[in-house]
Amino acid sequence: MSATVLYMSMSLDGFIAGPNERADNGLGDGGHRLHEWALAGADAGDRGVGHLTGVDGQVVDEFMATGAVVAGRGTFEPAGGWGGDHHDGVPIFVLTRHTPDSETGQWPLVSYVSDVRTAMTAAKQAAGDKNVLVHGAGTAQLALAAGVLDELEIHVISVLLSQGRRLFDHLGPEHIELERTRVLEGNGVTHMHYRVRR
Amino acid sequence: MSATVLYMSMSLDGFIAGPNERADNGLGDGGHRLHEWALAGADAGDRGVGHLTGVDGQVVDEFMATGAVVAGRGTFEPAGGWGGDHHDGVPIFVLTRHTPDSETGQWPLVSYVSDVRTAMTAAKQAAGDKNVLVHGAGTAQLALAAGVLDELEIHVISVLLSQGRRLFDHLGPEHIELERTRVLEGNGVTHMHYRVRR
Repeated sequence: MSATVLYMSMSLDGFIAGPNERADNGLGDGGHRLHEWALAGADAGDRGVGHLTGVDGQVVDEFMATGAVVAGRGTFEPAGGWGGDHHDGVPIFVLTRHTPDSETGQWPLVSYVSDVRTAMTAAKQAAGDKNVLVHGAGTAQLALAAGVLDELEIHVISVLLSQGRRLFDHLGPEHIELERTRVLEGNGVTHMHYRVRR
Repeated sequence: MSATVLYMSMSLDGFIAGPNERADNGLGDGGHRLHEWALAGADAGDRGVGHLTGVDGQVVDEFMATGAVVAGRGTFEPAGGWGGDHHDGVPIFVLTRHTPDSETGQWPLVSYVSDVRTAMTAAKQAAGDKNVLVHGAGTAQLALAAGVLDELEIHVISVLLSQGRRLFDHLGPEHIELERTRVLEGNGVTHMHYRVRR
């Protein structure tokens, strides 16, 4: 019933961040372009982004209704760990090979897990009958390779970013067959939902 | 009125051919997977592909109604030069830095052009009020960089190919803004049409 669902904003040419990602440049140069659709309203002002349209709001509502979060440390830390609570106090499983520092290690909702299967299993258990929000390119790649990613919701942004970090990379030699289950045409973004076939 | 339109089948992870492309392996290993949708009917048999659905047929009809073809030599040669006639006797402009061999050099519909701007201008002129079919990753990249590609019709296949040759690569540092103009949900393929913003 419950599914692990990757939610990622990606340019048509496959990038999820611009070049030169650093702690103080978490989305890479120009990477904010990929998140304008979701920040509409909160972050309109100087970029002239309008309010969320119906389907964009619907997709945000969906991932904010998940029952647990699995994210890589490369997503978690630049986001400031979402202040320790991504949404609604659901548990957050951070995939990392490294020991957390003392501050983030103290957040009660946050667990650190070194194995993607363990992270997904724990998150599904915690989420009950709700879905699990999966976030981060590295986590996506590990989960796809391990066969523990159930669905993908890719927000395809109407731009060619031209360079940066790709969502789908290092996947190994096998084709991974998908079933398209939904397409929603948002404002400058096309939300494409797929189920991973096994 | 007339537009240069890139038509390419691409996996969700951005590949247009599998690895190990060679003269006798033009689509690369496993690359035929990306073309099953268009070969349905002609090539069903052992792969169990059904006949083209309405929108898949519509898209094929559209690119077979173009008034000229621009393709890279890397597309043209593995396809056997389409026997010298891609469809309906429209002129074919092959983008290449090399002199053609004597056989293909004799095809009356085929011209060899070394510069992408020249190729697009000549093709538009030849096509009259019809669109120009653009084909090939290298040609797409050159045309995007030169600002002479007007539209993209990307057939996004419901598969992660995991490796091979990417459609969008080497585009340089600039973002290229697109406007989504149509999405058609085909059989295992999502046809996404964009206009290049300038």
